[in-house]
Amino acid sequence: MASKKSAPAKKKATQAAGKPPKGYDTRQAKNRKLTRKDVKKAAKRYSNWGRWGKKDEIGTLNFTTPEDIVAAAKLVRKGKVISLALNYDQQGPQGAKSKYPALGRFNPIHLMTRTGTDAYSGVLDKRGIRGTDDIIIMPLQCGTQWDGLGHIMFEDNMWNGYDCREVTSAGAQKAGIEKTKEKMIGRGVLLDVARAMGHEFLPDGFAITNEILDYTEKVQGVEVRRGDFLLVHTGHVQRCLTNQSWDGYSGGDAPGFAFETVEWLHKKEIAGVATDTWGAEVRPNETEDTNQPWHWIAIPMMGLTVGEIFHLNELAADCADDGIYEFLFVAPALPITGAVGSPVNPLAIK
Amino acid sequence: MASKKSAPAKKKATQAAGKPPKGYDTRQAKNRKLTRKDVKKAAKRYSNWGRWGKKDEIGTLNFTTPEDIVAAAKLVRKGKVISLALNYDQQGPQGAKSKYPALGRFNPIHLMTRTGTDAYSGVLDKRGIRGTDDIIIMPLQCGTQWDGLGHIMFEDNMWNGYDCREVTSAGAQKAGIEKTKEKMIGRGVLLDVARAMGHEFLPDGFAITNEILDYTEKVQGVEVRRGDFLLVHTGHVQRCLTNQSWDGYSGGDAPGFAFETVEWLHKKEIAGVATDTWGAEVRPNETEDTNQPWHWIAIPMMGLTVGEIFHLNELAADCADDGIYEFLFVAPALPITGAVGSPVNPLAIK
Amino acid sequence: MASKKSAPAKKKATQAAGKPPKGYDTRQAKNRKLTRKDVKKAAKRYSNWGRWGKKDEIGTLNFTTPEDIVAAAKLVRKGKVISLALNYDQQGPQGAKSKYPALGRFNPIHLMTRTGTDAYSGVLDKRGIRGTDDIIIMPLQCGTQWDGLGHIMFEDNMWNGYDCREVTSAGAQKAGIEKTKEKMIGRGVLLDVARAMGHEFLPDGFAITNEILDYTEKVQGVEVRRGDFLLVHTGHVQRCLTNQSWDGYSGGDAPGFAFETVEWLHKKEIAGVATDTWGAEVRPNETEDTNQPWHWIAIPMMGLTVGEIFHLNELAADCADDGIYEFLFVAPALPITGAVGSPVNPLAIK
Amino acid sequence: MASKKSAPAKKKATQAAGKPPKGYDTRQAKNRKLTRKDVKKAAKRYSNWGRWGKKDEIGTLNFTTPEDIVAAAKLVRKGKVISLALNYDQQGPQGAKSKYPALGRFNPIHLMTRTGTDAYSGVLDKRGIRGTDDIIIMPLQCGTQWDGLGHIMFEDNMWNGYDCREVTSAGAQKAGIEKTKEKMIGRGVLLDVARAMGHEFLPDGFAITNEILDYTEKVQGVEVRRGDFLLVHTGHVQRCLTNQSWDGYSGGDAPGFAFETVEWLHKKEIAGVATDTWGAEVRPNETEDTNQPWHWIAIPMMGLTVGEIFHLNELAADCADDGIYEFLFVAPALPITGAVGSPVNPLAIK
Repeated sequence: MASKKSAPAKKKATQAAGKPPKGYDTRQAKNRKLTRKDVKKAAKRYSNWGRWGKKDEIGTLNFTTPEDIVAAAKLVRKGKVISLALNYDQQGPQGAKSKYPALGRFNPIHLMTRTGTDAYSGVLDKRGIRGTDDIIIMPLQCGTQWDGLGHIMFEDNMWNGYDCREVTSAGAQKAGIEKTKEKMIGRGVLLDVARAMGHEFLPDGFAITNEILDYTEKVQGVEVRRGDFLLVHTGHVQRCLTNQSWDGYSGGDAPGFAFETVEWLHKKEIAGVATDTWGAEVRPNETEDTNQPWHWIAIPMMGLTVGEIFHLNELAADCADDGIYEFLFVAPALPITGAVGSPVNPLAIK
Repeated sequence: MASKKSAPAKKKATQAAGKPPKGYDTRQAKNRKLTRKDVKKAAKRYSNWGRWGKKDEIGTLNFTTPEDIVAAAKLVRKGKVISLALNYDQQGPQGAKSKYPALGRFNPIHLMTRTGTDAYSGVLDKRGIRGTDDIIIMPLQCGTQWDGLGHIMFEDNMWNGYDCREVTSAGAQKAGIEKTKEKMIGRGVLLDVARAMGHEFLPDGFAITNEILDYTEKVQGVEVRRGDFLLVHTGHVQRCLTNQSWDGYSGGDAPGFAFETVEWLHKKEIAGVATDTWGAEVRPNETEDTNQPWHWIAIPMMGLTVGEIFHLNELAADCADDGIYEFLFVAPALPITGAVGSPVNPLAIK
Repeated sequence: MASKKSAPAKKKATQAAGKPPKGYDTRQAKNRKLTRKDVKKAAKRYSNWGRWGKKDEIGTLNFTTPEDIVAAAKLVRKGKVISLALNYDQQGPQGAKSKYPALGRFNPIHLMTRTGTDAYSGVLDKRGIRGTDDIIIMPLQCGTQWDGLGHIMFEDNMWNGYDCREVTSAGAQKAGIEKTKEKMIGRGVLLDVARAMGHEFLPDGFAITNEILDYTEKVQGVEVRRGDFLLVHTGHVQRCLTNQSWDGYSGGDAPGFAFETVEWLHKKEIAGVATDTWGAEVRPNETEDTNQPWHWIAIPMMGLTVGEIFHLNELAADCADDGIYEFLFVAPALPITGAVGSPVNPLAIK
Repeated sequence: MASKKSAPAKKKATQAAGKPPKGYDTRQAKNRKLTRKDVKKAAKRYSNWGRWGKKDEIGTLNFTTPEDIVAAAKLVRKGKVISLALNYDQQGPQGAKSKYPALGRFNPIHLMTRTGTDAYSGVLDKRGIRGTDDIIIMPLQCGTQWDGLGHIMFEDNMWNGYDCREVTSAGAQKAGIEKTKEKMIGRGVLLDVARAMGHEFLPDGFAITNEILDYTEKVQGVEVRRGDFLLVHTGHVQRCLTNQSWDGYSGGDAPGFAFETVEWLHKKEIAGVATDTWGAEVRPNETEDTNQPWHWIAIPMMGLTVGEIFHLNELAADCADDGIYEFLFVAPALPITGAVGSPVNPLAIK
């Protein structure tokens, strides 16, 4: 456990923010040389099927141990709580313009079934109490969200080799998000790639490579470890909020993980990963024959739970300020039976 | 801060479970002598309006300080995480029989917009990815949930004296649940009243009095403090699960807080309170002329955030087992703008 | 066209209501001797695939000609309009008890997005108009409804031989209900089988045979013709309304068409058929190895549009009263793109 | 009844299309001189409150008599059925750009609960039938629709003087759309104002005055009578379809009724009126201090049922072609209990 000691690395002064690793070429994502064959090779290489038994339904969330949780709780030093959620409402990222085919998601529809105006009008008094009530209609992945392990198939299989037909119109019979209900907690680590690269917002098409992840760890003085929840800040949500437009965000071009990072993430044995983009990986994708190839490996083959549309701006500012990039991370999914995703209010507690 | 030291009180051996305080009469709730005048008097006495300024929208959640959060994190000793949520699905508590008027709530409707069977059929391959997606339709208070401060009005006012017309069909313009997004974390304390009273499940109509709360604290060796989240176990959810029937649960008769506990809770200055009943307070209510009188005071007058339909059985067993009734409690509401409640997956972390 | 002359047959006095055809045994449905092989044979025999071309998407609705519509309009003699719809609300037939597996339907959820109480409270006045608005959430087949031709598959095919995979999570790419938008109109004929059999309500398991249909035509002095919309009254909806309970109705046992009637309906070349039961055919079904065998033939093989949960009581009374069992029938489905069913307010105009 | 004889007026050759009445100024709507005082005066003058008794809930629909329906049925001469509905889907008019505040409506969300791909995958075979099923979520006024009499309030009252508080979050306790279930049928008359004015599409802000209505009647050789359903064609829906954009349509500027037409419509004693615009009346409105002033009078004061987003293009072409502007009109609302509007598939039958 010695290696897990969490002495805060106060790197604020010495951090060489804005200097990308030597020779780094941000245009590489546009080469798009990846082929379906590469994807299949990676599927084989990074598969965790069977690693936690044939009946496992939570994948890499298994990496986090009780000891990790005890250690993560010790990272709470100033009692500051930062929510990583966008509010759920009609100002959310769905429904804006996109050059890509629509994903069919929409912003949350919040409806009242009893109101304070009903109360004022006296029409509730027959109940003997002036109570209000409400309803939500929302795609589970319309805002800040977890992708569950039933969200992406690799050919005819889902996580752990389950038949893809386990996800019917009646929901996911295997690996539903409800299986994670006591698991979304552990040490959180922020890699603020935008800041490390000297950007406020990384541009669309910017591929975050293994080299960049290593570099960011180094300049921020933090090490990603087994069982961690890794948060990667690109500035994408904040760029949209600043521009007062979500056009192009949801389903569109974005900075994000290069395909090769499936190796890095696999090797690090993290529990989960999340970013402030809509889809984690770089877009345009590095290939023309496969859509979101990183997803093909990360979710069904590795069993990695992926968070998207996390709002990391305030956390990034706080980490830059105190130089501490690790914290207690608690982000419990709603245990919706058979769901392939969940809205979430993730908390970073420092 | 000395008084907040959290030395685990190992009371397992000495706890006199099953012995109610001398002279206690469980039938008292049935006397129903409370009048509207008493309710109005309590409203005045226990009002926290203005206590945190005219613009406050979170009420007693203000009691929890950063220091409290740091201290609460230190309660994580074994790395055990217990979810207090029921899964959200068609087996939930809504829609069962009730002798009371319907509340208009229904169990969550979970719908798929793309499936693994679509994937298997090949119809998704034009997208270049076999991804599934889903939607939820749910009353925000249909399962494990927080009541927001916009949920109950006292006459023409809501929390902090805001006009009740701030909650229109467009939602709560004041004190929406989204205002709590960084607040639902602190020291959790379980008072297992059922166990203290020698019951597996408290019967309907059982009124939990101030005396019983004091007694339970004493026998369990735990003290409820300023800024805490208090969880009270009655066994009600577990009774329904054991009986395989939710008949009479939602909106019906229940064990729960006696009206007088508004004084106890006010004095203790807790941040929030939650139970495993649908509506926190004893039912039949202690009055015939007011429906849910405890709610009239607790929410709009005190500004107390209330959790309902928490599933406390596993936590109660764990606390009985190790004799430790305090823990880190993290239960972030979904920040749905203008909502008067929120589903939640509350975690007790020991 | 002479044979289509619509002289009103005033049979009121002479109608021998209550006398079933000689030797008729209502218990026959319980023999349940039908096999999958019989169903397959019928599929072949009564198939209309290709009858209206390879691209047809409306099936037997093609039978109704413009001349039929002109003739049907002439049946309007007294200007009486009878709605055959149940109101859509929480008092509908879904959610009651059933010994059969749930169909996953629920009663309509009607929600307001602006109210008269909002208006009264003054909160709408900033809009310069006091307008209300509302939303519905409903299964398309939860109440009075049309089954579209995409609703039932025969093995891997739907109507006209289309691949069943044309109905994905994105809806029906073929034979969606919107294709019928100008078609649900023609001559309506009521066969009041309940009355002809001497019943107010036919009992569950009562199989309406070809013989009974012929007999009912005869005693009511009406002939079912090519292009007609046939309505069959069993009394089932009215039985539930009278008993003030929908228990057992939706998805449960019922009077209804014997399997053999696919021949009768095929021969008659009707445009559409509707009943006051939830599922048109007799239940328990006449077979144990196939669920709803009549549906297997009627919808995907014959291309017959089927109406269910029609409320035929008032129409039946009116027809018994004036002895006229034919009328103008107008029952336009909502053209919901890709839908496999539609709610409808069917009108019989006499 | 002589005056109601329906001899088809074959005016095709003589119709002076494209010549607006002498001195007509389309810019008049922009003067915006109407005041709240004028609106109040009109409310008093054109009120039908009490005309059909204190308990009436359907207003001008009372004007249509059984004799009118018999006569209307006689207008069916060629058996041609024209649907006036837009399909309900994601291509509908909601969600496009608008310079006005959002109305909170969205296009229909159609979801499958069982699919043909489920069928193909074999997962439905445990049910013994390969059936599909679906659900709709839709604002009742998001597409082709009827405004019910609970949709607009005049100050604190709705139709017939009912208190506006009759429309709560639980729906309309008075004048719900379900009260019209047997009423939406009669003689339909199309006034093709666009064609009469020589336009394919009337421009936004074009006010249709009493004079223009008289003129259109005259040039088209058709007379609007008591109990009729009047359809007014402006070309607005078709303009959007032609431009492949709904931008500005829903809630935006439009051609439509001048305020003064409340007098014309009142005098004519029509049963209902519908247009192909989103909101019937000219916009920008003729006043700056009242939003949609025509609605203030037509719905709550006159009790006039109003149809919107009717797709009148095909009907207009057919009427221009045969010179017959009258027909049987059948447009039954879905009887959704307590609804203030309803989607509808209106049929013109010629």
